[in-house]
Amino acid sequence: MSGQDKIIFDKVCLIGIGLIGSSMAHAMRAQGLAKTISIYDIDPAARDVARELNLGHAVCDNVEAAVTDADLTVVCVPAGAVADLAPELAKHLKPGSIVSDVGSVKQAVVRDLGPHVPDKVHFIPGHPIAGTEHSGPRAGFATLFEGRWCILTPLPGTDPKAVEQLQHLWEGMGSQVELMEPGHHDQVLAITSHLPHLIAYTIVGTATGLEESTQSEVIKFSASGFRDFTRIAASDPIMWRDVFLNNRDAVLEMLGRFTEDLTALQRAIRWGEGEKLQEWFTRTRAIRRSIIDAKQA
Amino acid sequence: MSGQDKIIFDKVCLIGIGLIGSSMAHAMRAQGLAKTISIYDIDPAARDVARELNLGHAVCDNVEAAVTDADLTVVCVPAGAVADLAPELAKHLKPGSIVSDVGSVKQAVVRDLGPHVPDKVHFIPGHPIAGTEHSGPRAGFATLFEGRWCILTPLPGTDPKAVEQLQHLWEGMGSQVELMEPGHHDQVLAITSHLPHLIAYTIVGTATGLEESTQSEVIKFSASGFRDFTRIAASDPIMWRDVFLNNRDAVLEMLGRFTEDLTALQRAIRWGEGEKLQEWFTRTRAIRRSIIDAKQA
Repeated sequence: MSGQDKIIFDKVCLIGIGLIGSSMAHAMRAQGLAKTISIYDIDPAARDVARELNLGHAVCDNVEAAVTDADLTVVCVPAGAVADLAPELAKHLKPGSIVSDVGSVKQAVVRDLGPHVPDKVHFIPGHPIAGTEHSGPRAGFATLFEGRWCILTPLPGTDPKAVEQLQHLWEGMGSQVELMEPGHHDQVLAITSHLPHLIAYTIVGTATGLEESTQSEVIKFSASGFRDFTRIAASDPIMWRDVFLNNRDAVLEMLGRFTEDLTALQRAIRWGEGEKLQEWFTRTRAIRRSIIDAKQA
Repeated sequence: MSGQDKIIFDKVCLIGIGLIGSSMAHAMRAQGLAKTISIYDIDPAARDVARELNLGHAVCDNVEAAVTDADLTVVCVPAGAVADLAPELAKHLKPGSIVSDVGSVKQAVVRDLGPHVPDKVHFIPGHPIAGTEHSGPRAGFATLFEGRWCILTPLPGTDPKAVEQLQHLWEGMGSQVELMEPGHHDQVLAITSHLPHLIAYTIVGTATGLEESTQSEVIKFSASGFRDFTRIAASDPIMWRDVFLNNRDAVLEMLGRFTEDLTALQRAIRWGEGEKLQEWFTRTRAIRRSIIDAKQA
C-alpha cells in the first residue's frame, strides 16, 4: 500500500493543540492519514510551539483560516471553552464535512456545539480514552492512541458513512472504536475516570495541608500507595475543572455512592468490624482479575 | 569479598512466609546475609510451598523449632496475628538475639509483642516500604527491597549496636534505612499508605455495586484512571483488614481530613465554583514534581 492509499481525509483541522491535539497531529503524520493538517490555538505561545515542532502544514492565527475547506475539524479544547468557540467555528465549517471533538464529557459538547452546527455538516462527538499527566503541545506523541479505546457518540440520524470515515481515522491511529449514547458515556466515564481523578486530587491536596515536616516524609515514603495517586493528580487543572463543571450530575451521583461506601467502611473501622472489611477487600480483588483478563492492566 | 564476609546473622528465623517473608528469604540467600534461615508458618500449605521453593535451610512445623538459637527472628504475619503468637514466640527467643517484624503498623506490635519480649532480647520493630498486589509464599522475589526505604522504630534505650546490625541486614537487601518513633510512623503511613488503600478499596467496591452492563464497561474503559486504583485494591485482604483495625485512630484522623476536603470539592462542583477547583488542582501538581525530584516516582 502506498502512503497515498492510507489518506482518510484531505484536510484535517485541529482546534487546540494540547496533549491530545498534538498527539493526533503526530499520529496522522506518522501514519499518513491526512493530506494536510491545519492548526489553530487561542494561545499564541502554543501556536509558536506548533510551528517550531512542525505539527501541521499550516498553523493559523485565526479560526477561519484553519477551518476553511477542512474535511474534518476536531475540537481539542477544554470543555469550558467550547461554548465561546462554537459560533465562530460553525460559520466556517464546509458543507458535507465532519466536526468532532475529543472532550471527556459528551453531553456538554452536544449542548454547547450541537445547536451551532449547520445542517449539512456531520457532528460526531468523540473521546479517545488516552492521556498522560503531561499537557501542552510539547506533550504529544504519535503512539498515544495505540491499543486504546476511542468512544464516538453520534446523535440519532447521523450519516453512518461519516461515522465510518471518522472511525477509520481513529483505527488508523491505532485505536479500537466503540459507539455509545452521549449520556451513557458520561455516566461510565464518571466512575472510570472523573471520580478517580477527583479522589486523587483530593487526597494529594489533603497531604499538602499537613504540617511541613510530615509533608516531606509523605514524599519520601510515597511508594507505599500515595505515589499512584499523585500521577493522576498532576493532570491538566483547567481540563479537569471543566470536566467536573460539565459532568456535574453524573459525578455527584457517583460521588454520593462512593461517600456512602466510604462511610460504611469508616464505621466498620471505628467499631472494629473485621469481617465486614475483609469481605469488602476480598470482593475488590476480583475486579482486578477481570481487568487483567481484558488486557487493560 | 568472599560470600562468608557478607554474613550478618548466623541464624535468621522467619515467622510467616508470605510476600515479605519469602522475599526476605530470597534476598538473604541471594546476598549471602545469613548462614542459615529457618521458617515457620501457621499454615501447613504455606510450609509445603516454602519447602518446595527451598526458601530456607529448615522449614519447621512449630514455632519453637524455628526460633530456637536464632540470632534474628523476624515476625512476618498480619498485625492481627501477633497477639496470639507472642507468648509462645517469646519463650524461645535466645538471650542477646534480636526480634523484629515487618508490619505496616508499629504501635500495635509494640503493644502486642513488646510486653512478652525477655529483657535480654533486643526488640526492634521494622517496616519495609515495599510490596506488590500479590501475596503468599510464591509471590516473593529477591529484589523486592532494592532502592526502597525500610523504617526501623526502636524504643528508647535499645542497644544501638543491635539496631546497627539489623540496619546492615536491610542495607544488604538493598534498602535505605530510616529510624522513627513508632507513633510518628503510624501517622505518616496513615496518609501515605493506609488512606490511599482504603480509598482504592472503596471506589473499586463502589464500581462492583453498579448494574452489570455498566460494570463490564468500567473494566473495558478502566485505563482512564480507575485501573490505577484496582492494582492497590487487589492487595492482601487479611493484611489490610488488620492494618485498619490496628491503626484505627491515625486512619480515622486522616480520613476525617480527607472527607472534609472531598466535601469542599463536592460543594464547589455543585455550585459551579471553577476557580476553587482550578486552584486546588494546580496545587496538587507541585507534589508530583517533588516526588519525581526525590526519585520516588
